[in-house]
Amino acid sequence: MKASSGDALAHLVEALRRLPGVGVKSAQRMAYHLLQHDQPAASQLARALDAAVQKVQHCERCHTFTEQPVCATCLDPQRDPHQLCVVETPADQAAVERTGSYRGLYFVLMGKLSPLDGVGAHDIGLPALIERAFDEVVQEVIVATNFTAEGEVTAHVIAEALKSRGLRVTRLARGVPIGSELEYVDLGTIAHAFSERR
Amino acid sequence: MKASSGDALAHLVEALRRLPGVGVKSAQRMAYHLLQHDQPAASQLARALDAAVQKVQHCERCHTFTEQPVCATCLDPQRDPHQLCVVETPADQAAVERTGSYRGLYFVLMGKLSPLDGVGAHDIGLPALIERAFDEVVQEVIVATNFTAEGEVTAHVIAEALKSRGLRVTRLARGVPIGSELEYVDLGTIAHAFSERR
Ligand SMILES: [Zn+2]
Ligand SMILES: [Zn+2]
Repeated sequence: MKASSGDALAHLVEALRRLPGVGVKSAQRMAYHLLQHDQPAASQLARALDAAVQKVQHCERCHTFTEQPVCATCLDPQRDPHQLCVVETPADQAAVERTGSYRGLYFVLMGKLSPLDGVGAHDIGLPALIERAFDEVVQEVIVATNFTAEGEVTAHVIAEALKSRGLRVTRLARGVPIGSELEYVDLGTIAHAFSERR
Repeated sequence: MKASSGDALAHLVEALRRLPGVGVKSAQRMAYHLLQHDQPAASQLARALDAAVQKVQHCERCHTFTEQPVCATCLDPQRDPHQLCVVETPADQAAVERTGSYRGLYFVLMGKLSPLDGVGAHDIGLPALIERAFDEVVQEVIVATNFTAEGEVTAHVIAEALKSRGLRVTRLARGVPIGSELEYVDLGTIAHAFSERR
């Protein structure tokens, strides 16, 4: 029996296709490029994937990615512990950080409510957020979920859960264009929305 | 000294950015997706990258990717050894194969002439192609490089090198794609189809 001549390449294309936003043509181009022009990049990526899977975990306090039990931001004594900003993803957190207009702490949902996809309150850590927000130090929760349909529903559910227990909850001002994701919004708009939060 | 909390994640984003067509935002989204929702895919990709780098090499006869010294197509006794089709990439070879209209052999350049990027005749294996084409069995070389500026230059150089040594060299016909409406075909193609009418 003749051995198949293209298994390793076919498996690589297949594995690359599991990356979000990568179709079969892109996966082929990536595989060809790595093997033909940049084998060091292929090996570097393999090592980086293994290291990330092994080391990266979720912060016990804010749920963002970290290699320690508690992330550097949560441990930073310079941050204002009276404010807690709720974002969907670490990318959104990074976008808020880049504005330089917020010095409080974070809670990262690592997703958004999406009943149709089976993503419920527990999946976004709502019970943990409630416990976190009522640590007797937090005075204001700023909900900075995206201004998409699912982000708004998530914001509403979070606001209801916290307000009903007596906490001050604000939402970023609607200076952020409706329908857009924070990650792709210019910094000035995000900074403005922070100062206009209500 | 406090250890950096995001090294593994930052390294992963950096490694993903080396994939063609992947910017920093896409790389972040890919990294977050893998770590949050699909760690098996991350490990699978790491294994596939290592296996491909270790196993995939170039066919001695046609230069395409293979795990054997000579690829399955070159070894296939059903193929017509009198015809040799020259393509830029394995993806182009796969496209020709899918047409089902060609039963000869191939030579894969694994690139195209691009003097501005420092890609010369040796980089696309022109000396090897000349040796391959003059094996006394090949009767016709069909140049199927892409119909781009660089693909045309590559075709021209290959054709000159082989014709001057007395071999029959043909080029895929250019013209209006079958099934397309003139209104939507670019003007250069229409103009060319006019001058090449027969
Ligand atoms: Zn944290
Ligand atoms: Zn071959």
